[in-house]
Amino acid sequence: MIIPAKRENIILGYLGPQGTYSEEAAKSIPGRSTECFSSIEAVIRAVDEGLVAEGIIPIENSLEGSVNITLDLLAHEVNLYIVGEVTWPIQHNLLVKPGSNDLRVVISHPQALAQCRKYLQAKFPTLELRNAASTAQAACIAADDSGQYAAIGSRSAADLYGLDIMAANIQDNEYNCTRFVIIGKHSPKSLIAKTRYKTSLVCQIDGSRPGSLCEILQEFAVRNVNLTKIESRPARRGLGIYIFFLDVDGQISDDNVQAAVSAVKLKSSWFKNLGSYPML
Amino acid sequence: MIIPAKRENIILGYLGPQGTYSEEAAKSIPGRSTECFSSIEAVIRAVDEGLVAEGIIPIENSLEGSVNITLDLLAHEVNLYIVGEVTWPIQHNLLVKPGSNDLRVVISHPQALAQCRKYLQAKFPTLELRNAASTAQAACIAADDSGQYAAIGSRSAADLYGLDIMAANIQDNEYNCTRFVIIGKHSPKSLIAKTRYKTSLVCQIDGSRPGSLCEILQEFAVRNVNLTKIESRPARRGLGIYIFFLDVDGQISDDNVQAAVSAVKLKSSWFKNLGSYPML
Repeated sequence: MIIPAKRENIILGYLGPQGTYSEEAAKSIPGRSTECFSSIEAVIRAVDEGLVAEGIIPIENSLEGSVNITLDLLAHEVNLYIVGEVTWPIQHNLLVKPGSNDLRVVISHPQALAQCRKYLQAKFPTLELRNAASTAQAACIAADDSGQYAAIGSRSAADLYGLDIMAANIQDNEYNCTRFVIIGKHSPKSLIAKTRYKTSLVCQIDGSRPGSLCEILQEFAVRNVNLTKIESRPARRGLGIYIFFLDVDGQISDDNVQAAVSAVKLKSSWFKNLGSYPML
Repeated sequence: MIIPAKRENIILGYLGPQGTYSEEAAKSIPGRSTECFSSIEAVIRAVDEGLVAEGIIPIENSLEGSVNITLDLLAHEVNLYIVGEVTWPIQHNLLVKPGSNDLRVVISHPQALAQCRKYLQAKFPTLELRNAASTAQAACIAADDSGQYAAIGSRSAADLYGLDIMAANIQDNEYNCTRFVIIGKHSPKSLIAKTRYKTSLVCQIDGSRPGSLCEILQEFAVRNVNLTKIESRPARRGLGIYIFFLDVDGQISDDNVQAAVSAVKLKSSWFKNLGSYPML
């Protein structure tokens, strides 16, 4: 992954606790020290209030889709910019206390349990499934127990809590990864030459007549700007009124992107530029 | 709300337990007896396996957005049709045991607590917030307690558990309603004259070049077919590959809708018609 400028002593907030996939993604960013927060909203607020310089938050998972709280907060609650992105593979492991030989329960975050459902049914059909607040909390519970719990979690959780990896990569679908974005108070000024950029936008359009969304998308298509993502979210003003999150190839200073964005702004009842950042 | 044909003794499955907003919506459908299931997936499977003739499931909320499990199951797991829809207002109430005068905790589903956050901060800043599995479970806990719990839930939960409505309509945003769809094994054959219909479709398109989504939307626009909803969900084959849920005005047998759908099918790598049904 590419970060606009390598600086030292930058604090990067992330969604804790320690031992989660979010922490693994945060630690993969070079030149940052990390600080853990209790929720996605807490990470975003910490950046907004200047407690940390940057935050890393999940925005999309290849199986579960968009992380709605991230989209809603970036659209409605703060004026922050996306300055980078990283895609992290979600590889679930079955973690047990060394010497466990009387497993009764598999514990994890409900999403992790769901993503390993077929594996568990095939290999451990008799074990009870139990929910935890996070994969890291599940590992902590398994570590504290007498050996009846197996947790589903990350390699870093195994390290942190001294658990053995009884089985690795147990998720049912191999295409399981999460896209994280790095957010900051300012859009990066010095852009890196020969690097491909992506630009994220949000807009609200008049959806009451045929073709209004299509007209917006055409502004990009006629200028040969590729749309890599479109996602609707409620405008929070009634059913059937949406805002659209758009990701396009290129940076806002590119002539074709700038022209398309200017045209889209004119056709939108509300518009927000979430920033240009190096593409993965 | 309009239902294609009024028949007696049709069993309608819904997401329980009793006392939820889902139950209120289910009971509003005329000519049905209702049966409660423990999850959205259980309702859908019950219809698919013929245990019940129809099911009613939430598909979209005006604040929270799409109900992803509903979209994913209808797209990937079963071949069922949407045969009707109903929009139900979500009006949260603060429910207490008669005579309570020592409130310590507000309990509800996390989404209900979040939707009343500002109200609770203003009126009851010292009460502890606690999560329950559903608004109905919260009401049940408040009813069983000695009077320290207030639950956030529906009027029907108050009736069911003998609770008083201490404050009504306490949600922070007045535009809080949920759209439910009624699903069945067959698309209704006898369509009602002079009734406006809606058609729901899902497709996957080649998103690797500029304008591919736009080309799909143009097939509707050039035929004056209004698009009322577009929603992307992961195709489950990697990040950046999506399927699109589209709702359009009109029924599949209308000439312009049929022509647009035929053109979209040709441009899609995968396509599914979820059915035409009377519009609200």
